[in-house]
Amino acid sequence: MSLIVQKFGGSSVADAEGIKRVAARILATKEAGNDVVAVVSAMGDTTDELLDLANQLTDAPPAREMDMLLSAGERISMALLAMSIESSGSQAVSFTGSQAGMITDAVHGKARIIDVSPHRVRQAIDRGYISIVAGFQGMSRESNNITTMGRGGSDTTAVALAAALGADSCEIYTDVDGIYTSDPRIVPAAQKIDVISSEEMLEMAANGAKILHLRCVEYARRFGVPLHVRSSFNDHEGTWVLPSPEDNIKLQEGDTMEQPIISGVAHDRSEAKITVVGVPDVPGSAAEIFGVIAGANVNIDMIVQNISKAETGKTDISFTLPSVEGTDALEALEAARATIGFEDISYNDQVGKLSLIGAGMRSNPGVSYRFFEALHQAGVNVDMISTSEIRISVVTDAELLDTAVRAVHGAFDLDGETEATVHGGTGR
Amino acid sequence: MSLIVQKFGGSSVADAEGIKRVAARILATKEAGNDVVAVVSAMGDTTDELLDLANQLTDAPPAREMDMLLSAGERISMALLAMSIESSGSQAVSFTGSQAGMITDAVHGKARIIDVSPHRVRQAIDRGYISIVAGFQGMSRESNNITTMGRGGSDTTAVALAAALGADSCEIYTDVDGIYTSDPRIVPAAQKIDVISSEEMLEMAANGAKILHLRCVEYARRFGVPLHVRSSFNDHEGTWVLPSPEDNIKLQEGDTMEQPIISGVAHDRSEAKITVVGVPDVPGSAAEIFGVIAGANVNIDMIVQNISKAETGKTDISFTLPSVEGTDALEALEAARATIGFEDISYNDQVGKLSLIGAGMRSNPGVSYRFFEALHQAGVNVDMISTSEIRISVVTDAELLDTAVRAVHGAFDLDGETEATVHGGTGR
Repeated sequence: MSLIVQKFGGSSVADAEGIKRVAARILATKEAGNDVVAVVSAMGDTTDELLDLANQLTDAPPAREMDMLLSAGERISMALLAMSIESSGSQAVSFTGSQAGMITDAVHGKARIIDVSPHRVRQAIDRGYISIVAGFQGMSRESNNITTMGRGGSDTTAVALAAALGADSCEIYTDVDGIYTSDPRIVPAAQKIDVISSEEMLEMAANGAKILHLRCVEYARRFGVPLHVRSSFNDHEGTWVLPSPEDNIKLQEGDTMEQPIISGVAHDRSEAKITVVGVPDVPGSAAEIFGVIAGANVNIDMIVQNISKAETGKTDISFTLPSVEGTDALEALEAARATIGFEDISYNDQVGKLSLIGAGMRSNPGVSYRFFEALHQAGVNVDMISTSEIRISVVTDAELLDTAVRAVHGAFDLDGETEATVHGGTGR
Repeated sequence: MSLIVQKFGGSSVADAEGIKRVAARILATKEAGNDVVAVVSAMGDTTDELLDLANQLTDAPPAREMDMLLSAGERISMALLAMSIESSGSQAVSFTGSQAGMITDAVHGKARIIDVSPHRVRQAIDRGYISIVAGFQGMSRESNNITTMGRGGSDTTAVALAAALGADSCEIYTDVDGIYTSDPRIVPAAQKIDVISSEEMLEMAANGAKILHLRCVEYARRFGVPLHVRSSFNDHEGTWVLPSPEDNIKLQEGDTMEQPIISGVAHDRSEAKITVVGVPDVPGSAAEIFGVIAGANVNIDMIVQNISKAETGKTDISFTLPSVEGTDALEALEAARATIGFEDISYNDQVGKLSLIGAGMRSNPGVSYRFFEALHQAGVNVDMISTSEIRISVVTDAELLDTAVRAVHGAFDLDGETEATVHGGTGR
């Protein structure tokens, strides 16, 4: 008998009909001979409605109370889901994050899991119950307060529970059929990926792919949990995200590790580029700049330093950062202009980042050539470049990003013959 | 410095404006130099909306999950109230029933409090925080599950917390100015009672007065908690419900224990009357009847046995019961007709009960005469009578109940010169 953890997002349980559909799926999994633990987010609009109420009362809601408020959302959806399952004659019991043993640090709004002790969930499984667990929330052992985990918190809850319970797999239900080789809204010929390594999935998530949150993939990789990303609207197999082969995990029958060289093409429009012009080319200048940026709590992504102009002894340093943090970074840099001694700053948020990801590129030296040739043929100018062992990323003009993605996708034979279907997206 | 527990019902926190009003009142109490603990119900329609969702999923929601669902309501209102207070610059912290140490038995939907250990609330008070506690909910120590307490649960939570914290008083905020000598909708001349003993308040609540629940008054009496029932729409003094003088509690300055003979006239339309006709007048017949009724889980109120008719050796037994339990009682009796050997049953739910309540009637022998004379003058026929040391109750025709209430109210000089104002009502 397998133990499967299933995670359902807010759009899957948006109303009574949705809850019934989810209940039916859980029951089908149970009836197929599996033990099931379901992790559920708050119903559709609940979070927005609660946030709206809070905003009517205060501009700066205290974080502890905000967590208390938002955690009510999962309480509602999980109790309703348990009721719906029970009405079909199976036994179900719901658990809050705290009851399920999700112990977090005390950082309200973006708590991190520090321990998972799902004794009550284990006991419920042993008694034949289906357990429904609140996603997104936990309890701080330090403060005994209720915490929430921020974006992707429900996915992470599911993976953490799967790891702690030694589940055979963790199914993440979403509104698409799985992970695609690229965003089907940009590349209609994008194909569903059957199997992808956690390592590649991490690069995909970190570089703009939206379906799985980085944090959840990191957790699954660290604890060797096989993820199955699939649609809540049909019974198709989705995408398996598997910990690396060294982890020696059992693959499902029929799966193969003979993967293509390239897994997919991710893109990201959320970044901006800052160039600090005329920086004295002496040791420590770069360190000073990034020290100032770090001091402003801004995360930087790619960095390029131009070749120094010999005649001036000055250089330019460019980097990308989330464009929402642009103002903070610019203000911090301006304040340090005299200290650092640079001449000017330029800021551009009309940029896009494209990333080619594939574990196979490690042993295929022709990948870079094919990649840049495709961009060249498509008339896309490359502004910045960064690489890892299994990824090449470039920054281009935002207007050319879609063209670039389609060109690269085609050049690596990722295009399929059928068009992917597209639905909306969700958050928690 | 006094410690005051304040309870606000769902209609007081129905929307953001209501929450701000409640926050302002709590802050005013704090700024007047008191420590404050506020107990709050779910916002206005929340409970009904949650019930509606549950009913869309199942006809028979499991009680444990129903409690999990409904308890989300207070979580929302208490977090919002804490936010609203914090936005005014005072420190507030919200606690669930479980966090506030409300330990109950494991009877979901109508749990009873078995222990109150408000360590965290005490700690918050000592640090100068205003505590906001979820009403209506607790945790079973036996099952570690979340429980709810049923109707009047929030009032009872407030009184129980006040008792456990040794609060100076417990203020119950409502939409009327206090307890009235009679229902102002029937007796426009009804007057607000300034002070009433717990003993009399118990009789009022048990006999149809709606403002305070029996359970909350019982609790306050047992633990010597002075209750102050007052309006959330103004700052008027309301009604003090004081444990009996023997409890030796401190009265507020200006109060007096020189109470009138009569405190008020309560009425109740929710009962029905059953008469079992032609019961063999032998020992054990009544016991058989009431055994059958108890077996059907029906609560009876008043009982009258007619004088036996010598020629037949048979008698009639009448009793009143909640009319919602009428069908159950009739079915149980019919099933036992042969065993008991009665001739017939009559059922009448067009009856009303009127109760005159006053601790002063103990030492005033003329009360009964004045009472029945008033009914006689008003042309009201009395059907059944029952009495306690501080109460006389009669059952009359439902149509004559209002007339009867007004007549008795006037006969005991309870009428005032001004008319009372009337608002709607609430539940939790």
